[in-house]
Amino acid sequence: MSHQYLIGVDLGGTNTVFGIVDSKGNIVCENSIKTQAFPDIHDFVDACVQCVSPLIEQVGGKQLIGGMGIGAPNACFYTGTIEEAPNLPWKGKVPLAQMLSERLGMKVVMTNDANAAAMGEMAYGAARGMKHFVVITLGTGVGSGIVVDGRLVYGSDGFAGELGHMIVDNSPTARQCGCGRRGCLETYCSARGIVRTAQEQIEAGHPTLLSNVKELSALEIYKAAKQGDEVAIETFRRTGETLGAACANITTFCSPEAYIFFGGPMHSHEFIFPSLIDTYNRQVLPIYRNRCRFLLSELMDRNAAVLGAAALVA
Amino acid sequence: MSHQYLIGVDLGGTNTVFGIVDSKGNIVCENSIKTQAFPDIHDFVDACVQCVSPLIEQVGGKQLIGGMGIGAPNACFYTGTIEEAPNLPWKGKVPLAQMLSERLGMKVVMTNDANAAAMGEMAYGAARGMKHFVVITLGTGVGSGIVVDGRLVYGSDGFAGELGHMIVDNSPTARQCGCGRRGCLETYCSARGIVRTAQEQIEAGHPTLLSNVKELSALEIYKAAKQGDEVAIETFRRTGETLGAACANITTFCSPEAYIFFGGPMHSHEFIFPSLIDTYNRQVLPIYRNRCRFLLSELMDRNAAVLGAAALVA
Repeated sequence: MSHQYLIGVDLGGTNTVFGIVDSKGNIVCENSIKTQAFPDIHDFVDACVQCVSPLIEQVGGKQLIGGMGIGAPNACFYTGTIEEAPNLPWKGKVPLAQMLSERLGMKVVMTNDANAAAMGEMAYGAARGMKHFVVITLGTGVGSGIVVDGRLVYGSDGFAGELGHMIVDNSPTARQCGCGRRGCLETYCSARGIVRTAQEQIEAGHPTLLSNVKELSALEIYKAAKQGDEVAIETFRRTGETLGAACANITTFCSPEAYIFFGGPMHSHEFIFPSLIDTYNRQVLPIYRNRCRFLLSELMDRNAAVLGAAALVA
Repeated sequence: MSHQYLIGVDLGGTNTVFGIVDSKGNIVCENSIKTQAFPDIHDFVDACVQCVSPLIEQVGGKQLIGGMGIGAPNACFYTGTIEEAPNLPWKGKVPLAQMLSERLGMKVVMTNDANAAAMGEMAYGAARGMKHFVVITLGTGVGSGIVVDGRLVYGSDGFAGELGHMIVDNSPTARQCGCGRRGCLETYCSARGIVRTAQEQIEAGHPTLLSNVKELSALEIYKAAKQGDEVAIETFRRTGETLGAACANITTFCSPEAYIFFGGPMHSHEFIFPSLIDTYNRQVLPIYRNRCRFLLSELMDRNAAVLGAAALVA
C-alpha cells in the first residue's frame, strides 16, 4: 500500500514543527507548538496530538498517511527515545516515538536532526539517486548523517554519525570543545568555530573590516569576504581546509560519491569550497583522488528539518 | 538451496591458496599454486582451474558448492577486478572474478584481504552474532574491514575501509607513508611502524635489550617486552595509544559494538590492549564511553584468509 502523505516533525529546543509532506516533497500544511511550554512529557504528547490532528483531517484523514518521522536532538533510532538532550525540558530517557505512535495509531520513527537531513537529501534534495554519501551540517555545532548503500548508518547503539566530534587536531594547542575534549571538527567548522578563526586573526592584529563589527557572526564574516576583506577570506579558506582534511579521512571509511553541506555558514560556499576541494584531493589516499563530488544541500531554502524527518518513514 | 561447501581463495603475492570450507568453518581440503609463475592472467586462470578441480571432485562435485570467494590485494567487490596491485604480476584491471566464474560455472566474488577477514570473523570467528564491528589487520600494512548492520562497507567504488590510511598525525613531524602522504595510521601501527617506534627510542639512547638485535621485528620486540625491557614495553604502549585514538575517531562514524584485531603484532596484545582501551575511553565522545569491546581475532591460528574469502559467498 502506498500512502499519499507523510508527517515530518522538527523537534527543537524552541519550537516543535509539524508538516504534512506529499510524495513530491511539498509541505502541504504545517503547524507548531512551543516545546518549552510542556515540561511534563505527557502534556507535550497531548499538545502534539492536538496540533497535528487538524492537519491530518485537512489532507483527508489518517488512512492517507504513511507515518510520522521526528528529527530531534539526542534521539535514538533503535529505541525511539530522546536521551538527556541538554536543550529539551525532559530528563532521562523519553520514549516519545512509542507514546506518539500509541496516541496517533501510526508508525512513528525518530532520529537526530543531521540523520534526518541526510534522509531528506536522499528523498528530495541533492542526493537523489545516490546510495553512498555523507551530509555535514554546519550550525551551532557540526552534525552528520552517513548513508552507506542507501541506508543511514546508525551503528550498534543508534548514535553513529557524530563526525563533528572527530578529533582533527591532536596538538596541545587544539581548541577546547563543548564535549569536554579538544580538537573536535566542530570547534573549527561550526558557526562559532568560524567566528573563533576570525577572532584569532583580529587579536593577532591583522587589519580587517571585522574589527568594527560588534557581534561577530558567520554572516558578518561573509559580508566582509564579499568586500574583499583578507581576514574574512582567510577565515573561510581555513574552514575549507579543515573540512577537506576531515573529509579525506572520512573517505577511508566509506568512500562516498559525494559530500553534501548544509547550514548557515555554507552560504559562504564560494569562499569555502575551493580550499576544501583542493585540500581534500591533496590529502586523500591516491585511489580516491578526484572521484568525489562536493555539493550544497538542495534543501537550504526549504524546510529541510521537516522534509528530512518525513523522509525517515518514506 | 543450501550448499554444503564454499571455496575460499587467498590470493597473495607469493602463493594462491584454495580451500574447501564446510558449514562449520572447517577447511576440509586445500591446495595452492605459485602466483608469480603465471605472468599471463590466462595461464593463471588455467592453473587455478587445474588446482581447484580435484578439490571439488574430492568433496563430491560442483553441485555441493555454493560459490567461490577470493581475498586479493586491490580487489574491487563491485567489478570483480584486481586493479594495479603492486605485488601481483598482472597490470591494469584484471577481471578475475568473471574469468573464473565462466570457467568454473559458479558464483565468484572478490574483495580485499581485510574485508575478507571481517567476513571470516562474522561467519566463523570473534564477530559471530554481531552486526556492527570493525576488523583491523596489522601486518606489513594496516588494513580494515567495516561491517555496518551485518554488511561490509564497500562504498561508492568498492574501495571503502582503508582505515590504515586515516591520517592520525597532522603535525609536520608525522611519519612518511608508502602511499605518498604523511601521518597515516599504518606508519605507526603496522609491523614496520612498530619497529620504527622502537628504533626511534634506541636512537635516542634509551638502554634496551633491543640494541643487540640484528634484525629488529615485532616478534623480537615482543620477546624483549616479555623480559621486562622498558623500550619494548613503551613501544607497544605507544602502539596501543595510537590505535585507541584512531578507534575513538572511527566510533564517531559507525559506533561499532567491537573492534577486532588481527595479525602478527597482536600476539603482543597483553602489552598493546591496556593503553589502547585506556586511550580509547579517554578520547572517545562521552556518549560512547565504556560501551565498546576490544577483541582478538579468533582466526589467528586458523587459515583466516581462506575462511574469510569463503565467508564472502556464505
